[in-house]
Amino acid sequence: MKKSSGQFEELSAVFLNTSLKRSDRVSHTQGLMDLSIQIMKSEGVSVENVRIADHNIPHGMLPDMTEEGYEKDDWPQIYQKLVGADILVIGSPIWMGTMSSVAKKVIERLDANSAEMNDKGQFVYYGKVGGVVVTGNEDGAKAVASDVLYALQHIGFSIPPQADAAWLGKVGPGPSYLDEEADSENHTFTNRNLTFMTYNMMHLAALLKSKNGYSNMGNSMEAWENGERWSFKKRNEIEMRA
Amino acid sequence: MKKSSGQFEELSAVFLNTSLKRSDRVSHTQGLMDLSIQIMKSEGVSVENVRIADHNIPHGMLPDMTEEGYEKDDWPQIYQKLVGADILVIGSPIWMGTMSSVAKKVIERLDANSAEMNDKGQFVYYGKVGGVVVTGNEDGAKAVASDVLYALQHIGFSIPPQADAAWLGKVGPGPSYLDEEADSENHTFTNRNLTFMTYNMMHLAALLKSKNGYSNMGNSMEAWENGERWSFKKRNEIEMRA
Amino acid sequence: MKKSSGQFEELSAVFLNTSLKRSDRVSHTQGLMDLSIQIMKSEGVSVENVRIADHNIPHGMLPDMTEEGYEKDDWPQIYQKLVGADILVIGSPIWMGTMSSVAKKVIERLDANSAEMNDKGQFVYYGKVGGVVVTGNEDGAKAVASDVLYALQHIGFSIPPQADAAWLGKVGPGPSYLDEEADSENHTFTNRNLTFMTYNMMHLAALLKSKNGYSNMGNSMEAWENGERWSFKKRNEIEMRA
Amino acid sequence: MKKSSGQFEELSAVFLNTSLKRSDRVSHTQGLMDLSIQIMKSEGVSVENVRIADHNIPHGMLPDMTEEGYEKDDWPQIYQKLVGADILVIGSPIWMGTMSSVAKKVIERLDANSAEMNDKGQFVYYGKVGGVVVTGNEDGAKAVASDVLYALQHIGFSIPPQADAAWLGKVGPGPSYLDEEADSENHTFTNRNLTFMTYNMMHLAALLKSKNGYSNMGNSMEAWENGERWSFKKRNEIEMRA
Repeated sequence: MKKSSGQFEELSAVFLNTSLKRSDRVSHTQGLMDLSIQIMKSEGVSVENVRIADHNIPHGMLPDMTEEGYEKDDWPQIYQKLVGADILVIGSPIWMGTMSSVAKKVIERLDANSAEMNDKGQFVYYGKVGGVVVTGNEDGAKAVASDVLYALQHIGFSIPPQADAAWLGKVGPGPSYLDEEADSENHTFTNRNLTFMTYNMMHLAALLKSKNGYSNMGNSMEAWENGERWSFKKRNEIEMRA
Repeated sequence: MKKSSGQFEELSAVFLNTSLKRSDRVSHTQGLMDLSIQIMKSEGVSVENVRIADHNIPHGMLPDMTEEGYEKDDWPQIYQKLVGADILVIGSPIWMGTMSSVAKKVIERLDANSAEMNDKGQFVYYGKVGGVVVTGNEDGAKAVASDVLYALQHIGFSIPPQADAAWLGKVGPGPSYLDEEADSENHTFTNRNLTFMTYNMMHLAALLKSKNGYSNMGNSMEAWENGERWSFKKRNEIEMRA
Repeated sequence: MKKSSGQFEELSAVFLNTSLKRSDRVSHTQGLMDLSIQIMKSEGVSVENVRIADHNIPHGMLPDMTEEGYEKDDWPQIYQKLVGADILVIGSPIWMGTMSSVAKKVIERLDANSAEMNDKGQFVYYGKVGGVVVTGNEDGAKAVASDVLYALQHIGFSIPPQADAAWLGKVGPGPSYLDEEADSENHTFTNRNLTFMTYNMMHLAALLKSKNGYSNMGNSMEAWENGERWSFKKRNEIEMRA
Repeated sequence: MKKSSGQFEELSAVFLNTSLKRSDRVSHTQGLMDLSIQIMKSEGVSVENVRIADHNIPHGMLPDMTEEGYEKDDWPQIYQKLVGADILVIGSPIWMGTMSSVAKKVIERLDANSAEMNDKGQFVYYGKVGGVVVTGNEDGAKAVASDVLYALQHIGFSIPPQADAAWLGKVGPGPSYLDEEADSENHTFTNRNLTFMTYNMMHLAALLKSKNGYSNMGNSMEAWENGERWSFKKRNEIEMRA
């Protein structure tokens, strides 16, 4: 193994695997996620991987769904992990062309926490970096990546270049990522995208961390609610082109 | 007007308005884009705005479609503008719940240029920042933003937090953004998102510019093709979890 | 109430509400679904409504997930209801611009049953009609409808004209469908679409029922697997244009 | 060739190829469309195929864009073909995971004509059947099909079961449908879906034609605007569950 470049050793990352299957069954998505995890670890990043299906996580829009009568909710402890990390990677299989229901549930729960603010009055995910890993045996990688990355940036994550990596077989039923006949380990396109994604997440996370995240000029909820508008003007206050 | 903060004066931005309509008709999307343009100009950013429908731009996947027999192609000159800029904002109206055909044509043409490399061997859009502005009279803002932002990051742009701003009326036919009865200029939600989007694009663009873009460790096509793999390893080279 | 037209009295319909919330909380989506249910009942259709969140339904891709170690799975009994019905309506709220995770789970479970065949060797949902009802307070109705209707037709449902009805408020946080200030009950656009959707589902379901579904010429899995190809020819068997 | 079953001889179909390329270049999408056309012709259906890129069709939302100053608009004559047909099939390549800009332009133009009414006061596309054929070399078939079929049903087309057929290669650059190394002519999954799609479109079109389309009870714009509501009731007129 190459020695770490030393640039990323203060970073931490959380990988959430949203396979429908629990850990007693093979997750092809984990197979691809593991390649990204391996790079990060080699580069000195602290990595935690969570298999969401192993946990008891209700559907819902509260930070803690036990408040709505559910007996158990493992989300708050998973949220604590990711809110403490610099990088979040969501891994999702494809079902019917879109992300898994488990991935959608994770997006909803992330959103439910998104009203929290950091100490600069920004949404809590500001300064963190997001990416997505997708596997399937036929089609839908871009649709899944698009929906996941949109949601992440919409609640405050930053998305570096080419932050999606995927593996797919030919259209129709066929071997999955870890099946030997898929010969996926030699699929250069996927390997390259996975590598670029992983390094770009680390580069952007390191850059943002070195600056303690984003300046809060122009993006602080707290300041906005106190009437600050920076250089924004309403239409009636300025001459307009349209 | 507030004085510029001085932080963004070296930045330049290109706004592409992908309305179906030419400049002889009102573009509601331009109306919302203008608010973002106003902020950037106030902060010292050099801004150029292009109304795509005013130009002769063939559908196609070549950098210059005159090579395929089209008489005229204004895309190369527009591309020159944006490849020289730090920030790209695509403004799109919504038709049938997704981006306009003009916006899709722009995405295709951007993609056709994406094989070009910068002097670090990275895809040409590395180091640039992307965002999206959407208007419609009923529905589809997130779908448009999702498709546009996905495409931009996939070809190398970076997406800062909350890089989408939109205005919509109630479901069904109704007033558009600039129609007086829409009272859109007082719609706080849209004004705030537009402000946050604009500042976040400027912050990230300034940060990336200060570092001369991304380090090319782990993301250089040139290096990859020369056999460099950094810390990437194939599945058979490492012990795996899945 | 008007007397039923008598044309639809042999039909039955199942409505699945995929709100994240259980019945102890108000579902705005149910509010809009109820208008469709009311029409159907007035026209003599037998209607059953299921609130999915009240049931214990694991994520997964088996017809009965107790086979994979889950203690309880209410899906098989819900599946029995809908496989016996002529019409399926899925009601979904919008979260982050796409269908709820509960709706996605239902799609996955429907898909897991889709390998079953009817007595003509066709996929089990052939001859049934699908539609979708969506509510949200800002945006995403078309994206949700698109994903739901695509999935339904892909596994064998027929989609009549304008089979989606939705209510939305203005972009951004605001009143939901049943909130008094939304004045949703007078929103003509939604009322009309809801009415057209409901009648079109009944018309197509009655038409298909009168013919005992689709002829199995050209669409029987069983026949295809036995080598029947009807008028299909491979490319090398015919002269082609392209 | 098998003799036609005789059931479909009164039907007519229009296929619109929305490739970005003009007829002087090979369209892989046409290759797959041709298989559906061959079946229909064998079954006696009158078929017309239009290569949209060969025509001069402005972006826009008027039935005839020469009214807005464009020199030429071939859309009105294409519209005449399809408004006279029973079946519409849109063929689209995939660019960046979604339909081609030419396909999106066609959707917009179809939509612009959708305000026309038939002699029952219904939207003009009522009684017609829609389907979609997609090719690409890696990913996005379901996303394209979903967007196209949604649009068609939303403006009045009926969608039969499994009305989407696609061919894709493995993720990443690779051979296209008609490239010899793709061996696509033996890809059973695509051949079967293409066959089922084609027959289901013919079955549903024949069924609707035999009934002269849909009864206008519950779906006539004209009647609605004259105050007819059939069995629809507003929320305040009925007792509700939610």
